Amino acid sequence: MKRYERLADQLIELIKRGDLPPGARIPSVRTACRAWGVSPATVFRAYYLLENRGVIRARPRSGYFVSQGPIEVPQASPTAPPDVDPKAVNVSDLVFEVLKTIRQPETVPLGSAFLSPALLPIARIGKSCATVNRTACLASMVDGLPPGYEALRRQISLRYLMAGMTIPVDEIVITSGALEAMTLSAQLLTAPGDVIVIEKPTFYAALQAIERLRLNVVEISVDPVKGHDLDALARALQQYEVRACWFMTSFHNPTGATLSDSGKQALVDLLAKHDVPLIEDDVYSELHFGPHPMRPAKFFDRNGLVIHCGSFSKCLAPGYRIGWAAAGRFANRLERAKWMTTLSASMPAQRAIADYLEHGGYERFLHKLRRELAQQQSQMLDAISRYFPADTMATKSSGGYFTWVTLPDYVDSIQFFLAALGSGISIAPGPIFSADGGFRNHVRLNFGYPGSARLDKAVATLGALCADETRCSTRLSGPARPH
Amino acid sequence: MKRYERLADQLIELIKRGDLPPGARIPSVRTACRAWGVSPATVFRAYYLLENRGVIRARPRSGYFVSQGPIEVPQASPTAPPDVDPKAVNVSDLVFEVLKTIRQPETVPLGSAFLSPALLPIARIGKSCATVNRTACLASMVDGLPPGYEALRRQISLRYLMAGMTIPVDEIVITSGALEAMTLSAQLLTAPGDVIVIEKPTFYAALQAIERLRLNVVEISVDPVKGHDLDALARALQQYEVRACWFMTSFHNPTGATLSDSGKQALVDLLAKHDVPLIEDDVYSELHFGPHPMRPAKFFDRNGLVIHCGSFSKCLAPGYRIGWAAAGRFANRLERAKWMTTLSASMPAQRAIADYLEHGGYERFLHKLRRELAQQQSQMLDAISRYFPADTMATKSSGGYFTWVTLPDYVDSIQFFLAALGSGISIAPGPIFSADGGFRNHVRLNFGYPGSARLDKAVATLGALCADETRCSTRLSGPARPH
Repeated sequence: MKRYERLADQLIELIKRGDLPPGARIPSVRTACRAWGVSPATVFRAYYLLENRGVIRARPRSGYFVSQGPIEVPQASPTAPPDVDPKAVNVSDLVFEVLKTIRQPETVPLGSAFLSPALLPIARIGKSCATVNRTACLASMVDGLPPGYEALRRQISLRYLMAGMTIPVDEIVITSGALEAMTLSAQLLTAPGDVIVIEKPTFYAALQAIERLRLNVVEISVDPVKGHDLDALARALQQYEVRACWFMTSFHNPTGATLSDSGKQALVDLLAKHDVPLIEDDVYSELHFGPHPMRPAKFFDRNGLVIHCGSFSKCLAPGYRIGWAAAGRFANRLERAKWMTTLSASMPAQRAIADYLEHGGYERFLHKLRRELAQQQSQMLDAISRYFPADTMATKSSGGYFTWVTLPDYVDSIQFFLAALGSGISIAPGPIFSADGGFRNHVRLNFGYPGSARLDKAVATLGALCADETRCSTRLSGPARPH
Repeated sequence: MKRYERLADQLIELIKRGDLPPGARIPSVRTACRAWGVSPATVFRAYYLLENRGVIRARPRSGYFVSQGPIEVPQASPTAPPDVDPKAVNVSDLVFEVLKTIRQPETVPLGSAFLSPALLPIARIGKSCATVNRTACLASMVDGLPPGYEALRRQISLRYLMAGMTIPVDEIVITSGALEAMTLSAQLLTAPGDVIVIEKPTFYAALQAIERLRLNVVEISVDPVKGHDLDALARALQQYEVRACWFMTSFHNPTGATLSDSGKQALVDLLAKHDVPLIEDDVYSELHFGPHPMRPAKFFDRNGLVIHCGSFSKCLAPGYRIGWAAAGRFANRLERAKWMTTLSASMPAQRAIADYLEHGGYERFLHKLRRELAQQQSQMLDAISRYFPADTMATKSSGGYFTWVTLPDYVDSIQFFLAALGSGISIAPGPIFSADGGFRNHVRLNFGYPGSARLDKAVATLGALCADETRCSTRLSGPARPH
C-alpha cells in the first residue's frame, strides 16, 4: 500500500470514528503535511482518492468537507435523464441543449454534428500519436507555432494536389479546428456594424460568431437541390458594402446541398468583381460519395480572395481539433491573428496527424468510409420513408452525413426536439440554423452512425412522434423519460 | 524498394533524360495513376518524396514543376540570417519580429517568452502522451468538449487546493492556452467602444486583443517593486464606466512585479465596489522562488468576479496549448464562448497533462525547476551588472523568468533590438509592451535558459552594444550578420 493510500485510509478511520463528522471541514494541505509528516503531493493524492470515492466534497469558496451519509465506494453513477424545460428554451439555449446531447451516451445521436467514432481509425491515429509524441525532441516544442507544423502543412498541400489543386505550403495556416480558421477570418475581414453575407439555413456557429462580432447579415437562401441563390447574392453585392461572404459550397450543413462547378465559378467571379473575400467552409470535402472530390470555390479563385477552411474533425480525429485555412492573400494576417488568440494549435495533435497522413493509410480508410456513409444514407432515407408521415421530404446528398428533413407543416420542430429527447433521441431542430428561428418544420438528421436495430427503432419512434400532432402535444406537456 | 520509391525513381529518370525538362509541369495525380497503373496514394507519396528532395517545386495556383538546376539531395538548408529593415519596423510588426526569433535556433533567445525546453520534463510528458493516447477508447472522443476533460479539471482543482484555495471543478473551463481564456473573457465582458483597464507596461497579446475588440483602454502603471497603482485604478473606476480589468498580479510580465496580499485584497474590494470583473493572468504562478505559492487576487474574491487564468505552457508543456480559467460567475458564459470559437481544447494534450499531473511527479519537478530559475536569475543579474553600463537597473523578481531592464536613457531599445539581432541575440524591446510605444530605454530579458558560456557571451555583447551609443548607431546602419 502506497503512502497516499495509507493516508486516505487514516482519514477514513477518523471519519468513521466520528472525529471528522459529516459536514466537517478536512485539514488543509499544509496542516495535513505537518500533522502526518508527508509531502503535499501525498496529501494531494490522498484527497484525490477520497474525492473520487465520494468521501469528501468541495464546497465553492470554502474548502473540502466530509460528505453526508454512509461512506461507500459509489458505483458508476447513472446519468441523469435529459431535463429540458420547454418554457426556458430560446434558439441560442436550444443550440446548447442540442450540443449537450453529444455527451449523453444513452441518447441516440441523430442530432449530433459528429460522425460515429466507430467509423474512424481511432486506434491507428492513437498509434501515430503515441509513436511521434513519446520521443519528440526538445527543440520541436516550437515547431507548432504559426503558421503551424511544417510536416503537417506539407501533407495538407499534397492532399490539395491529389484533388487537382496547387496550394503552396506557405498559404496554409494550421488552426484549432476549422471553426477557429473561420471565426478568425471573419474577425479580421470585418468591423462591428459591417455587412457579411451568410447562408440560410446556416451552421449555428456562424450565427454565433456574427453575433459576437456585431455584424449585420444578409442571408442568401440555399436550396437543397439547386444550392445557393446567386441572383440574390448579386443583388446584395449591388445594394450593400459587403465585407465578406461565409459559405459552405459542398455538402452544405444542414441541407446537404452542393453548388455545381459552374455555380462555384460564377460565385468566385461575382465576388471578384466586387473584391469581396469568401470564407469557404469545406469541412466535409473528403466525404464525397462519388469517385472524385468536389472542386471547392477555391479551385476557381485567381485573386487570392478565397479563404478555404478544412478540418480533420469530420473525417479523421474529432477530439484532436486540427483544422486549417488556405488563406490566399490573407495568409499573413490570419497567421498573425492566430499568434494573438490561441498562439498555436496543439503540437501533439499536429504531430500525430502529420504522421498518420504520411503512414496511416488515409486514402484507404477514406475509400471505405465513403462507401459506408453512402450506404448509411440509403438506410436512413429508407427508414424515414417507411416511418415518417407521407408528406415528409428528406434530402439526398452526394457527401457528408446529414439529411435535411422537411416535416408536415403542422409539426413544430422545437416541440418535436423536446418530445424526441424525452424518448432518448436527439435531433437538430430547424430553428437553430437561422437567425430568425425559421425552419420550424425542419430537422437535420445525422446518418453518420452505422445502421442498427436501435437506430431503426429510433427513426420509427421519431416517425410516430411527428405522425400525430395531438399525440406529440400530449407528450410535450409531460415529456416521457428515457426507458 | 517500395512502389512509391520506384515511381519517384522513374520520374527522376524522365527528368534526367530531359523528357521532363527543368520548368516542365509534372503529370497530375490522376494522369499519373492512369499512366503508371498505381493508386493516388502511391503518386502522392512519390511526389512528396520528390518535393522533399527539391526535385519538384510548387508554383502558386498553377501546379508542380520540375526544379531548375541539377538534381541532388540537398543538405539541411542553412537558416537564413535574421533580416530586419529598420525603416519597416512599427510596434506591431516589432512584436512579430521578436516572436519570429523563437524559431531561430541560432539566435540566443533572451527575448523569448518561453522557458528553455531543456528544463522541462519533455520526455516524461511525452510518455504520458503516448500511454494515454495509444489506447483511448471510442466514446472518449467527446470527453474534451467544454468545459473540458473532467480528469484534468479535477487535477487543476486539486492544485488549487494545495495552494489553499477551493475551486469547484464546475467552475473550471479548459481552453487552448491561457491566452484563449483571457481573450474570450475580454470578448464576453465587453462591447466595442467599452473601457477596459490594463497595465502599463503590459503583455503585448493583451494590447492586440484590445485592438481587435475595439476597446478603449485606461492604463494603470505597474511599478517593478510596488506593483499596480491602485490609487490610479480607484480614480479610473470613478471616472469611467469600466467593463473589465485585465491584470497580472504575480510575477508580472514584463516587470516581474507582484502585488502584495494586502494589495490584492484591496484590488478585489475596489473592483467589487464597482462590480467590475477581473481577468487575472496568473500563468507564472507555479514558478515561485519562495517556499509557498503567491495568493492570487482570486483568493480574496467573495463575489465570483475574478476570472483566474492559468496555463501549463509556462511550466510544463509549451506546445500542448492547455490553459484554463476558474471563471467565477462567468463560467457558464465562458464555456459557451469556447463551444462557439474553437469548440474544445485538443484531447490528446488534455489527456496527457491529466495523466502527467496524476502520475508524473509534478511537485518534485517544480521544486527543482524553481531552484534552477532562482539560480539562473542570480547569474543573469550578475552578468548584467558586470557587462552593462553602470546606470543600468534590472529588476529582481520572486518568480517567473523575466527581468525588466532600465537602460541608460540614451539607448533606444528598438535600435538596440535590431543591433542585438544583427549579433545573433534576441531581446524584447520595451515599446512592444505598451500601446503608445513607450519604454524606449527598457528591455525584457529572459533568464529561463540555463547558464552557459554562450549565454554569458551574449550578455557581454549586449552590454557592449548599449555601452557606446555611437557604436550602437554605427552597427545599425549596417547590421552585422550572426557569425
